[in-house]
Amino acid sequence: MAEPVTESADVAAPARSGPVLFVHRLRVRYSECDPQGVVFNPQYLAFADHTLTELWRELYGGYMAMLERGVDVVVAEARLRFRASARFDEELDVAVDVAQLGTTSMTFHYLITRAADGAPLAEVELRYVWVDRDTGAKTPIPDWARSKLAR
Amino acid sequence: MAEPVTESADVAAPARSGPVLFVHRLRVRYSECDPQGVVFNPQYLAFADHTLTELWRELYGGYMAMLERGVDVVVAEARLRFRASARFDEELDVAVDVAQLGTTSMTFHYLITRAADGAPLAEVELRYVWVDRDTGAKTPIPDWARSKLAR
Amino acid sequence: MAEPVTESADVAAPARSGPVLFVHRLRVRYSECDPQGVVFNPQYLAFADHTLTELWRELYGGYMAMLERGVDVVVAEARLRFRASARFDEELDVAVDVAQLGTTSMTFHYLITRAADGAPLAEVELRYVWVDRDTGAKTPIPDWARSKLAR
Amino acid sequence: MAEPVTESADVAAPARSGPVLFVHRLRVRYSECDPQGVVFNPQYLAFADHTLTELWRELYGGYMAMLERGVDVVVAEARLRFRASARFDEELDVAVDVAQLGTTSMTFHYLITRAADGAPLAEVELRYVWVDRDTGAKTPIPDWARSKLAR
Repeated sequence: MAEPVTESADVAAPARSGPVLFVHRLRVRYSECDPQGVVFNPQYLAFADHTLTELWRELYGGYMAMLERGVDVVVAEARLRFRASARFDEELDVAVDVAQLGTTSMTFHYLITRAADGAPLAEVELRYVWVDRDTGAKTPIPDWARSKLAR
Repeated sequence: MAEPVTESADVAAPARSGPVLFVHRLRVRYSECDPQGVVFNPQYLAFADHTLTELWRELYGGYMAMLERGVDVVVAEARLRFRASARFDEELDVAVDVAQLGTTSMTFHYLITRAADGAPLAEVELRYVWVDRDTGAKTPIPDWARSKLAR
Repeated sequence: MAEPVTESADVAAPARSGPVLFVHRLRVRYSECDPQGVVFNPQYLAFADHTLTELWRELYGGYMAMLERGVDVVVAEARLRFRASARFDEELDVAVDVAQLGTTSMTFHYLITRAADGAPLAEVELRYVWVDRDTGAKTPIPDWARSKLAR
Repeated sequence: MAEPVTESADVAAPARSGPVLFVHRLRVRYSECDPQGVVFNPQYLAFADHTLTELWRELYGGYMAMLERGVDVVVAEARLRFRASARFDEELDVAVDVAQLGTTSMTFHYLITRAADGAPLAEVELRYVWVDRDTGAKTPIPDWARSKLAR
């Protein structure tokens, strides 16, 4: 998991004007680690998903409440950069910010750090598309949702 | 999972000069699907990992045989693009190719298609770094490994 | 994972009158192993589930075909006994047999062995209840299903 | 997941003389649910495992601290009974108690309830064997460990 990643020009930088939008703390479970003794790489996408669930709760009263308003969110693209390994039983902070807010899509940036010392472990960038829950077709981000994301 | 992804200029294109390096067929398991009834997005990184395991078997006699030669491979970066959803019980073909072969790192491109009709479902790009198994330090790709990857 | 399990009187023995009903071979994936380097124990329930999916395909044309006939199957009880550890990249045979066939419920016995030498690794016993797909209420096992299970 | 389970004579009852040993609260993650919209059954074994990790922390300063004292714990048997389904985003309480304390093995009983209303969802019983960390051979439960479990 070595090798610092320096060529980051093509990754949208999160807006750093102030505190991050939301931070979710979680603890690495035994079930999330592989025989190398570290977190298996697909789990970082799951960490982002857990954090998104908590963000929806914070902003909109939960994911189910979003569905009830007739919209859903699907993942269109993901990007991950691994800097150091998370290990069993470590507490992690997943800080999420809005990197880009379009008409029907948006990009979130997740920075995962080790809670004990703040060491950056991984970055995850996810581009989401808002869709009509019934038809699955792209739909503009509703105003009630956008207003909480645009800062 | 809609929305075609068109702005792909920053993704390394796999070398298309001939057939792909390796194809692994797998069937979507119930345990890999989420309440939306489709494959949960982190599973695509796992699909790439399963395919890598089979590729190591094909090329080098297995992952354990690589470890015994004193090297290991870690993931430094990942990129995923989702085009359409894979569903429970569908068979998928994961075609892997070498997109870039550096001194100590390399990038593999995985194209995941639905076996029944060849529909492209997702692309995964993974940059790996070769490391010394004991020290964890970056190490040049050994000749015995490189010769099977450079075509 | 040591300790032979000898007090098995309370586990329903599978009907041994002939060959087992069905055998599914699978290979242990890296993602299924834990930091001890062996298969994480919840995965054995998933192995049984993967095998059940293949059994439904063999007997009834697939799980989706069962749903279309208006029935579903839910798990009511499970019992697992671990004898030895399965390891990364090993091939396993999951042999399933009908241990008990009731009116609305049935018990399947899964024996998981290492394909290379036939060593028994684990036994899983699952009691399933047939339910009406729409109401979720218990329903008698349909004749078309029962006839393939009673031997 | 219906069908009340009544024939429970062969399940060791937890010692009910007082409060349970430990309760761990967790929230059902999206990644833990299946296309039926409920928690996939192998996850209940994982819930027990997460709770065990927290119990080790409470009693002995963590699982890693146990390993450093030269012992490990492996699962020999498991029993699960499902009463009702847990759903996405619900909070669950996993109450663990010692059902049986032998020389080298012990049985824990986990009762999983929905936090909102206390409804019992599942019971999990796990028999563990203490082993020498280096040899893997069965070893008597150390006094420092036993004293916290015998009440």
